[in-house]
Amino acid sequence: MDSETVNIALLGLGTVGGGTLQILQRHADAIERRTGRRVKVRRALVRDPSKPRPPEAADIAVTTDINEILDDPSISIVAELVGGCDPTRDWIMRAITSGKHVITANKALIAQHGNELFAAADKHGVIVAFEAAVGGGIPIIKTIREALAGNDIQSVAGIVNGTTNYILTQMRDCGLDFSEALAQAQELGYAEADPTFDIGGIDAAHKLTILAAIAFGTPLNFANVAIEGIDTISAEDIDYAETLGYSIKHLAIARRDAEAVELRVHPTLIPQRHLLARVDGVMNAVLIEGDAVGETLFYGAGAGALPTASAVVADLVDILRLLSAEPDHRVPYLGVRPGAIADLPLRPLASIHSAYYLRLAVEDHPGVVADITRILADHAISIEAMLQRPDPAHLDTMPIILLTHRVWEHAMDQALEAISRLSSVRGAITRIRVQTDAA
Amino acid sequence: MDSETVNIALLGLGTVGGGTLQILQRHADAIERRTGRRVKVRRALVRDPSKPRPPEAADIAVTTDINEILDDPSISIVAELVGGCDPTRDWIMRAITSGKHVITANKALIAQHGNELFAAADKHGVIVAFEAAVGGGIPIIKTIREALAGNDIQSVAGIVNGTTNYILTQMRDCGLDFSEALAQAQELGYAEADPTFDIGGIDAAHKLTILAAIAFGTPLNFANVAIEGIDTISAEDIDYAETLGYSIKHLAIARRDAEAVELRVHPTLIPQRHLLARVDGVMNAVLIEGDAVGETLFYGAGAGALPTASAVVADLVDILRLLSAEPDHRVPYLGVRPGAIADLPLRPLASIHSAYYLRLAVEDHPGVVADITRILADHAISIEAMLQRPDPAHLDTMPIILLTHRVWEHAMDQALEAISRLSSVRGAITRIRVQTDAA
Repeated sequence: MDSETVNIALLGLGTVGGGTLQILQRHADAIERRTGRRVKVRRALVRDPSKPRPPEAADIAVTTDINEILDDPSISIVAELVGGCDPTRDWIMRAITSGKHVITANKALIAQHGNELFAAADKHGVIVAFEAAVGGGIPIIKTIREALAGNDIQSVAGIVNGTTNYILTQMRDCGLDFSEALAQAQELGYAEADPTFDIGGIDAAHKLTILAAIAFGTPLNFANVAIEGIDTISAEDIDYAETLGYSIKHLAIARRDAEAVELRVHPTLIPQRHLLARVDGVMNAVLIEGDAVGETLFYGAGAGALPTASAVVADLVDILRLLSAEPDHRVPYLGVRPGAIADLPLRPLASIHSAYYLRLAVEDHPGVVADITRILADHAISIEAMLQRPDPAHLDTMPIILLTHRVWEHAMDQALEAISRLSSVRGAITRIRVQTDAA
Repeated sequence: MDSETVNIALLGLGTVGGGTLQILQRHADAIERRTGRRVKVRRALVRDPSKPRPPEAADIAVTTDINEILDDPSISIVAELVGGCDPTRDWIMRAITSGKHVITANKALIAQHGNELFAAADKHGVIVAFEAAVGGGIPIIKTIREALAGNDIQSVAGIVNGTTNYILTQMRDCGLDFSEALAQAQELGYAEADPTFDIGGIDAAHKLTILAAIAFGTPLNFANVAIEGIDTISAEDIDYAETLGYSIKHLAIARRDAEAVELRVHPTLIPQRHLLARVDGVMNAVLIEGDAVGETLFYGAGAGALPTASAVVADLVDILRLLSAEPDHRVPYLGVRPGAIADLPLRPLASIHSAYYLRLAVEDHPGVVADITRILADHAISIEAMLQRPDPAHLDTMPIILLTHRVWEHAMDQALEAISRLSSVRGAITRIRVQTDAA
């Protein structure tokens, strides 16, 4: 074949950049079989040019100067694999205005600046592809944006952060405390030295922002996501949940109905028979409910050099096929054409409808349980299950664990406020939402 | 918006045709938001024009004459939702030569005649889209062909026939015999009056033919698939498998290595911890292993009016976007460009490497087990587990259940031949392959 060669540049030769380079070289012929074009990595941006590189990087011109890439008219596609919003936002904006197509694995950037980047890309007739930003190797962007285009999507619920899923899995399987499991994850490289973005839920919220926008055809709006991390989950909550037939997972949930959308990231009890409850370790999965397709689930490695490279290269193949096509023939950034993007009202957390797991410590004397259940009944909250287990570590108090049926969150807020004022209730009340839907 | 209207025709207004019509009408605005084009179902081919139609079909011209559709130059896209190869093959070929794009849910047709249909479509510059042919609402064609384009795919293993999965699930959960479970499936409409295609594995083999071609970039070759149905599976095999920690599923498996491909459909013991073991009832799932992405799993409804319509409409949206694009900008039928399709040698069943479940009935006297295990050892077959359970229904014989480690199938063939000649072995030996891979 006498194929056209397309020059690309990689911003970053770290984990993902190195993995991408490896896959590009291993599959150079396969990419040509698919697209009729050969890819050449012409330049790569690095922080330290003296750092030793793997053999596959031998004939690539590395530079620390972004201008050498952005000002090189022979480079048609830039893959940004650095992360963070600064200076990547500037770089990508400049690549777009120079007429270069962009591939990025950067969820923070797309979630927070996607609207302006897509508007600029539209204006300059280039593609910004971001499959690698969510779910690593799971092709969830393409699936929602293209493959489920015949659906009104009602909900998206995903385990989209491998670090928190690893920690929760280790807490369950090895009986570790949160801090022990976190330390172990850090040792294995599954958690950063500063793990705030992962365990605090920010990373999952970035991903949920993107998933919700393409699922519902709404603008990206990170500020709309209600976020809770997993640092409040204790080993005993995981134990009690298992006893009750549930696993605790850190879920990113987007739902819509005729009136509003809900966007939230928080620990969630999921029935053990549910497929999502069986997604363990660093694996990711996303469950999607559409009006035509019903429930579908997509499972795979959510991070790592090669799975992320798989997504980067899939984007690259799509771009190579459409290089000379009219912009009209491309899939719009958020699935619907820019003029058709329409915002939806946000349902605040207080107005969601959910079941709850509650754990509270009470003085062990007659009437305590009656007081608590009376307050719940006064707020129209009915109880599905209750456990009372003496805690050998705290002989003066008794833990009570409750599972409720679904109620409005503001009713639960008020009930917990009243329960916490009971003199026999000690300390803070733990409250975790429960996923009751089937699948 | 002042959008172009695109006329389409539906061949068939049965279950899938009716579902497609419903989704097209419900989502007409959404399709326009996605593509900038409005879809009008101009004609529908039906067998009996006097049959009452649902309200959404009220303003559609129904006809029993295919020529009214194929000769109508205002119709750009034909969706074939009839099934079977005759006369659909002729219809689709004529649609292609008339320059109409084709969407089909017809796995038998694509598996058996896809190569010639794609060649004709290539020549005439039209699209033949077939997402609905495999996995119902699970977008497995798009996933393999586009989203995993950065991978060498090593294996595809799927539960792709809802009827057999329903029957096996009911046998396990309700202790039914095969014939009882089949009768129940027929009553519920999950199995046809003539269930041969489903329970015999032909339907799954059609789907596997398609999956393998796009996973490996090989021509479609239905004749290469080794096929076993589920009618030989007994309630006791399912029981014994459960006791040993396995579920029996009807799997369609395609594997490749540097030398050859394996294509086979057969009942398979799968470890209960494996996600595929947990795909129950009429649900489908496909597990894909790629060199970059690792293991990914895609789960959803494998059949039914609306899930299949979801796939048909996704194909339609893709075609609408590319209506005026150059053929070069489209995804090739089998993922790689026609000139790059390359066949691979087939590994015959005798040369595969697999673990096995064996059940045999023996006279209960000393030395029988020693004779059997000696023959296995002589063929270098080692035993992982053995059960001996008196069977109250057959007091003169004792069932022996064996799980072996992985061996070459021809060694197992020879060993079973020798074992079956032992005078103490009664009746036929049941042999089921065992999936030992992780995930």
